[in-house]
Amino acid sequence: MQHGATVRQVANVTARVEQLGWHVHLSEDEGCTIIGVLGEGRALDRERFEGLDGVERIESIVSPFKLASRDFRPQDTVVALNGVRVGGPKVVVMAGPCTVESREQVLEAARAVKAAGATVLRGGAFKPRSSPYSFQGLGLEGLKLLAEAREETGLLVVTEVLSPEAVPLVSTYADILQIGARNMQNFALLHAAGQSQQPVLLKRGMMSTMEELLMSAEYILSHGNDRLILCERGIRTFETYTRNTVDINAVPLLKQLSHLPVMVDPSHGTGQRDLVGPVARAAIAAGADGLLVEVHPHPDEAMVDGAQSLTLDGFSGLMGELRAVAEAVGRAI
Amino acid sequence: MQHGATVRQVANVTARVEQLGWHVHLSEDEGCTIIGVLGEGRALDRERFEGLDGVERIESIVSPFKLASRDFRPQDTVVALNGVRVGGPKVVVMAGPCTVESREQVLEAARAVKAAGATVLRGGAFKPRSSPYSFQGLGLEGLKLLAEAREETGLLVVTEVLSPEAVPLVSTYADILQIGARNMQNFALLHAAGQSQQPVLLKRGMMSTMEELLMSAEYILSHGNDRLILCERGIRTFETYTRNTVDINAVPLLKQLSHLPVMVDPSHGTGQRDLVGPVARAAIAAGADGLLVEVHPHPDEAMVDGAQSLTLDGFSGLMGELRAVAEAVGRAI
Amino acid sequence: MQHGATVRQVANVTARVEQLGWHVHLSEDEGCTIIGVLGEGRALDRERFEGLDGVERIESIVSPFKLASRDFRPQDTVVALNGVRVGGPKVVVMAGPCTVESREQVLEAARAVKAAGATVLRGGAFKPRSSPYSFQGLGLEGLKLLAEAREETGLLVVTEVLSPEAVPLVSTYADILQIGARNMQNFALLHAAGQSQQPVLLKRGMMSTMEELLMSAEYILSHGNDRLILCERGIRTFETYTRNTVDINAVPLLKQLSHLPVMVDPSHGTGQRDLVGPVARAAIAAGADGLLVEVHPHPDEAMVDGAQSLTLDGFSGLMGELRAVAEAVGRAI
Amino acid sequence: MQHGATVRQVANVTARVEQLGWHVHLSEDEGCTIIGVLGEGRALDRERFEGLDGVERIESIVSPFKLASRDFRPQDTVVALNGVRVGGPKVVVMAGPCTVESREQVLEAARAVKAAGATVLRGGAFKPRSSPYSFQGLGLEGLKLLAEAREETGLLVVTEVLSPEAVPLVSTYADILQIGARNMQNFALLHAAGQSQQPVLLKRGMMSTMEELLMSAEYILSHGNDRLILCERGIRTFETYTRNTVDINAVPLLKQLSHLPVMVDPSHGTGQRDLVGPVARAAIAAGADGLLVEVHPHPDEAMVDGAQSLTLDGFSGLMGELRAVAEAVGRAI
Repeated sequence: MQHGATVRQVANVTARVEQLGWHVHLSEDEGCTIIGVLGEGRALDRERFEGLDGVERIESIVSPFKLASRDFRPQDTVVALNGVRVGGPKVVVMAGPCTVESREQVLEAARAVKAAGATVLRGGAFKPRSSPYSFQGLGLEGLKLLAEAREETGLLVVTEVLSPEAVPLVSTYADILQIGARNMQNFALLHAAGQSQQPVLLKRGMMSTMEELLMSAEYILSHGNDRLILCERGIRTFETYTRNTVDINAVPLLKQLSHLPVMVDPSHGTGQRDLVGPVARAAIAAGADGLLVEVHPHPDEAMVDGAQSLTLDGFSGLMGELRAVAEAVGRAI
Repeated sequence: MQHGATVRQVANVTARVEQLGWHVHLSEDEGCTIIGVLGEGRALDRERFEGLDGVERIESIVSPFKLASRDFRPQDTVVALNGVRVGGPKVVVMAGPCTVESREQVLEAARAVKAAGATVLRGGAFKPRSSPYSFQGLGLEGLKLLAEAREETGLLVVTEVLSPEAVPLVSTYADILQIGARNMQNFALLHAAGQSQQPVLLKRGMMSTMEELLMSAEYILSHGNDRLILCERGIRTFETYTRNTVDINAVPLLKQLSHLPVMVDPSHGTGQRDLVGPVARAAIAAGADGLLVEVHPHPDEAMVDGAQSLTLDGFSGLMGELRAVAEAVGRAI
Repeated sequence: MQHGATVRQVANVTARVEQLGWHVHLSEDEGCTIIGVLGEGRALDRERFEGLDGVERIESIVSPFKLASRDFRPQDTVVALNGVRVGGPKVVVMAGPCTVESREQVLEAARAVKAAGATVLRGGAFKPRSSPYSFQGLGLEGLKLLAEAREETGLLVVTEVLSPEAVPLVSTYADILQIGARNMQNFALLHAAGQSQQPVLLKRGMMSTMEELLMSAEYILSHGNDRLILCERGIRTFETYTRNTVDINAVPLLKQLSHLPVMVDPSHGTGQRDLVGPVARAAIAAGADGLLVEVHPHPDEAMVDGAQSLTLDGFSGLMGELRAVAEAVGRAI
Repeated sequence: MQHGATVRQVANVTARVEQLGWHVHLSEDEGCTIIGVLGEGRALDRERFEGLDGVERIESIVSPFKLASRDFRPQDTVVALNGVRVGGPKVVVMAGPCTVESREQVLEAARAVKAAGATVLRGGAFKPRSSPYSFQGLGLEGLKLLAEAREETGLLVVTEVLSPEAVPLVSTYADILQIGARNMQNFALLHAAGQSQQPVLLKRGMMSTMEELLMSAEYILSHGNDRLILCERGIRTFETYTRNTVDINAVPLLKQLSHLPVMVDPSHGTGQRDLVGPVARAAIAAGADGLLVEVHPHPDEAMVDGAQSLTLDGFSGLMGELRAVAEAVGRAI
């Protein structure tokens, strides 16, 4: 719509779109209202709309994802959390243990990553595990410990949610809902997260294409939740020396295709502590808006993923390196 | 336990196992009770059990999957449905449209596949779709149509369930719950299906190793549901001429590693009608216990996956070919 | 050209094609001469040719491979060797040790596979090995032993050639030149094999698409050698339980795209003796024209690939199974 | 051997090693002689050697690659060319057109990349092409044009060699022999390059593991050529948005496993001009010792790979960005 289009004009267009059986998605970009018209399988009859009052122009988005595309929103989306902005000039580092194991562990980790410059605490309370016999996380107890760590340190909390039913519970304790790689195409969960209005961190499936990631993002956006962050966490390839292969190409390409912020998880992406630092630096150099890093006070005693967790000192050292790289590409941490 | 071990002896062993913090899984094989002892991260103290009354022998299963492994149950599992046995000498063919679209479509397909020799009707009521804007299935209406087709033809019904909450509803209408490739590691859904006691068809994820498939099977088995069928449906590779790559090696290897029946879906596995027949014949030659085949009265008008659906005549012709191959490997259809 | 076109008419068309800077490939199909016009980057000016004497019709082949495509030659190519025809109604089995190790080994294997029904002896004299420190084959001595085994048994011989310079030498001893998976895009070698007029068995690279395989076939065909056999030998995927993943879809699809015979190597395709039989049966059921199978008198003592080699007895038993499957699909062995 | 071991002591140990049937590889590291003992399949009898004069210590290298491993040579190898050192503190940028097309094109590109700070000129004279009908390069004429550009600009020249026979010819004109991805396991070519004493740039195969790359490096090293540079150029995965997937993990991991310099080719690694810059920055941030970048005066008219070639201005702009990132990780360009 034109800059300054009235509410009545917007409502008029919206009503006509809906009369024709399309869905409407309203958003604002620099003071202009954008009316997203969503549907499939037929073309919009442009002539019906071109002459209507307040209509600036009509553009069709040919990519299969619409709301997630740069064509829909040319400006970068910035997900504003409580004091932290993901997708803006500052690179955001989210760090913490793979799994919440105990009060001591999570508080020690939280204090250390805060001191080193992280702004969000990561930690798993509900863990998706390949084996039914593996430790599945502390559950509600874990959520409470994360919330306690937030209370003490001022860090925000990101943690994984595994099923639609758990969305309200996890939302009570976490600032950001994480949808993990194995659930990237759990459409019932995407639906629930989309309706929740809670910020969401959506990880790419380990063998999902970028297009599939953006289609899953579209599920969340089209259910009305715009506070969405994408995360590349390594894909599955034939290479066996590393746990996964970080798709570094995905960082600039996702940012070209979409307006959404893009983070990288070098811990799962490599599976190996020694590689986390170099790949974290590479991610920032490639334009990532943030990092998700596993840090553990005592990695050798970690219940899950110790081999890829940094020590507290290791993380602190890494943050110094990352600041230098961020500056070199015109950003800060 | 020894052949003829008493209930008291079994209960005594079971109690001791549980006292030590392990989980117990009871099953029978040729008149002997097997006490499965499940847990992780420490070795069972064999000496505590070797002398107990009724104990025949103690074996440890080193593979990460236990209940699913051949070591646990050397005999083939036969999943007995109402008049159909999957995993026995007869190859079972499940056929029907990708998606239930209308009463006419599903009944016409059901009659034709029944006439051609299929014993189970497949058809999707709830469809997992990459795009939020694609047709998501008829839902409850679709389930009712499938049940009507069963009523008329005597075919059993297999259909997909997408979330834990939907398990009871789908179980009311379907004889077999299908868990699709994208949900193979939706652990909440595996948990619900395991508790349901409804037979389950578990499809391998397009991005999942055989070990991960067997670990997901273990989730279902360890929640007490033994009526489980595995299904290879093609994996994702670098090849672009075909939608997926059927992993034919997986058929004999899964049957070697596990006692569970193994089916193949040549429709999703190839994505191309012309290839379905040759790959279906190959699957039976390799030892598959059954096939899941997409058949549509008018494939060119199909709402989903028309390009890989056989016509009714095509399916009927294929059944003749499959019978010849089944006989050549000592089986029947 | 029309049926009965004269030599002069063919020569006239050929001359005009060459004047315009295109290359010509002549072949015959059911008594008609086909003039293949090869080049890239511009369209043929059809009008210049449509009126010429003897021209039946002009068809353009849009696939990137021309001479290899079904459009170019609708009938199946049968590669006629000395008494063996690959691509005809009979399925051809080529069997023998991975590597020629000694006179005793190769003769014992040759006699046994001959007795079981194989018609071609396989065995490596020059071995491509990932490590410079691994056994690289007996070289010329190995070629001589293969020739001696042919002398005694009447089997034909297929063996690998590793470099352009070695083509004449290997052609002296072998009936079929094998180009291995690692050399599928060694264009200098393809060029030399194309010029040699020796029958060629071209294996698909372990991470090459079907299109790339057909483009490499095109190199050989366009250098004037039509006696070419394709071989699927397993591709590299994320699955780690098996050495490779046999792409069973490739069997019917390559036969649909091309007129060339298609074989399968279930030994490298699985890497595991127990799986060779089921996958060999599957290959024939899917329409393969032949098999390449590793057989060793004493697999446990084999210098290379013992784990995937059948014993002599195992091979003999397999041949019985294969005959049954071949009959079921209307063929013989 | 001990620091200061005499030639006689070295000769004595060498003679004994060879008497036992092992191969010997001599090298020097910080003034100490290292006697590499190469062979396979049996253990060295350490006791025979421990007491010999001049022997400092005996270490066994368990990785399948020996001479290429960090265990063999803890210090970074620096490949010293005429005025350019690869593997030292300075990041080396090799740039130029994919293919030499004309005198004007190559000279214009050479002058521009020189002015922007590149020290080596890349350009293909012999091109490996999937299709026999595609442009195969200017051949000898192309080599001469590269040499002329070197004469004028002082840049060194790297260009690809496709077959063993061509090694002497290409060595006459080029400073560095490039072995391309498709030839990474062309063992006859590796052998010839190993014997040539010409510096070699070995690209990872698009379908090859890091271990296979290091084994191919071992072929070159074990034939006596130590001036070897590795290059990651993207691997083949299921992702279709990009031509290849740059394996950024490989940069730090190869440097950890091996002492050899590691470069990255972001042009082939992404296949898309817009992604070259961000991925080039990422490579340097991850620790790469150099970059191989495609630059063309008029990318839209390029005969090969125009879509991934930078313009001259684009390259010049990129060099500025790269200098900032190099400094951020303690290096220079």
